[in-house]
Amino acid sequence: MNASSTTVEYLTHSASEIEQALLTAFPHDWQIPHQLREAMMYSLEAGGKRLRPILVLTAAEAVHNDNLARKAAFPIACAIEMIHTYSLIHDDLPAMDNDDYRRGKLTNHKVYGEAMAILAGDGLLTHAFYAVTQAVKQGVSAQVALDIVSDLAELAGATGMVGGQAADILGEQGVTSLEQLEFIHLHKTSDLIMFSVTAGARVGGASNEQLIALQEFASKLGLAFQVQDDILDLIGDEAKLGKPTQSDVQQQKVTYPYLIGMEESKALVERLTAEAKQALMKADLAKPERLFAIADYLVNRDH
Amino acid sequence: MNASSTTVEYLTHSASEIEQALLTAFPHDWQIPHQLREAMMYSLEAGGKRLRPILVLTAAEAVHNDNLARKAAFPIACAIEMIHTYSLIHDDLPAMDNDDYRRGKLTNHKVYGEAMAILAGDGLLTHAFYAVTQAVKQGVSAQVALDIVSDLAELAGATGMVGGQAADILGEQGVTSLEQLEFIHLHKTSDLIMFSVTAGARVGGASNEQLIALQEFASKLGLAFQVQDDILDLIGDEAKLGKPTQSDVQQQKVTYPYLIGMEESKALVERLTAEAKQALMKADLAKPERLFAIADYLVNRDH
Repeated sequence: MNASSTTVEYLTHSASEIEQALLTAFPHDWQIPHQLREAMMYSLEAGGKRLRPILVLTAAEAVHNDNLARKAAFPIACAIEMIHTYSLIHDDLPAMDNDDYRRGKLTNHKVYGEAMAILAGDGLLTHAFYAVTQAVKQGVSAQVALDIVSDLAELAGATGMVGGQAADILGEQGVTSLEQLEFIHLHKTSDLIMFSVTAGARVGGASNEQLIALQEFASKLGLAFQVQDDILDLIGDEAKLGKPTQSDVQQQKVTYPYLIGMEESKALVERLTAEAKQALMKADLAKPERLFAIADYLVNRDH
Repeated sequence: MNASSTTVEYLTHSASEIEQALLTAFPHDWQIPHQLREAMMYSLEAGGKRLRPILVLTAAEAVHNDNLARKAAFPIACAIEMIHTYSLIHDDLPAMDNDDYRRGKLTNHKVYGEAMAILAGDGLLTHAFYAVTQAVKQGVSAQVALDIVSDLAELAGATGMVGGQAADILGEQGVTSLEQLEFIHLHKTSDLIMFSVTAGARVGGASNEQLIALQEFASKLGLAFQVQDDILDLIGDEAKLGKPTQSDVQQQKVTYPYLIGMEESKALVERLTAEAKQALMKADLAKPERLFAIADYLVNRDH
């Protein structure tokens, strides 16, 4: 078995563990209107790579190589997947990107209506913070959990992901510079990756130096991920991606290949990945191998 | 000066202190797209009674009668006003209640468009949790701040306010029982009042017994507040309310006066207020007077 197939196995196994944990993210005895619960779970169970929650688990284990750190990171992993999922539900709304399909399934509002989709998003966003508080039951200190709440609010909020989405919408008619494009990508995509790696590291008990090195890793990885997304939208395989390609072109979205060309974009992904791995080497981690493998996997992915 | 004018003065003064604090709720050096920041502040500055944040401050001071407890409660007061404000922005959207005016001003989406209004709501909701973490800088312990995060996520989320809004929307064609109506009101309105009193009490260092008594106070007060709202919608003065009356009738919403009659509704408000005050007496508070005064003020309010 080669390194790459081991990585795929690890990712698949972790994704299924996370999906299991998500099933009980809302306590069963909580009174939630049936259709609201169903709408939230519909999108939460809709699949995807589960990259962000996997990064939480993997970063925790990288810093503190035992099963306890990984186990303690599960509530945080669920939290970031709820944030990612809510953002997709709201982004798909008619007033935003107006998408009918996501990962081959009808989007939330096409199934439950716009009002319920807005509320399902609000419910998932709010519950993500509840999930973070549950990490305390797994031995995470109140101070660390509170630091994670603060990071999450900052990186997912108006100065983070929500800000990136706003900049994207405001700029749709006129993103012309690499600087604007980088602002949008930094916040729309990289900020949640930054959160995932940072939160995992905090759960693992990272030192300040480790935190800084891992954040450098996350920022390079996040940008590489986004540029690769832009590339795949142009030349990817629709069946593997589970969504139509060329959507950026059709929506006249400015992308890396559009701004700097395809070859330069591919070279950029390679360079960013190499820099991410260099940052990782500085972090002096107990178990860095899986983070290296994830970086390699992402640069070579075809979906 | 009579007791009631002193209460009005206290409420006005506290509301203006809260409005001052809200102005700096988003750090000035945070990079937030200009229009998103403006959209969030537009609704945050749109006024209102600021009842929920005032309850946070007043509950803190009631438990621990010094200026420090009140000061420490300000970040939490801002947090609950952000939650309340985001819920109004999302409720006003075309897919929800489709309102053009709120407190005499155009609603958020009428000024900034639907996409930006959705994002402004998401940004305020997310930032509320950031605000809670800031209470630590005022001497609140990490454990208490985390308990408040957990309360907020529960009471504002799918099993709280968002759940109440979902039940309201799902039931619009068919709320026929008092039980359904109580579920909707409990979660749409009372849950945030419950949060405000509980969080203030936590900041003030309430004992378990005090917390239980104050939560009983909050649950009675919250329901009284909602029934009074239903009454005012039928017989209130549009100029004082700052919104058209009879809107519930026009939208064929089921209300307390509709279900149990006007006289019985008025008697219910009186009874709930008396019970709220009885609960308060059990709490053995350092400075209960202002909470009593707020309960009396709310039952007699005309807007």
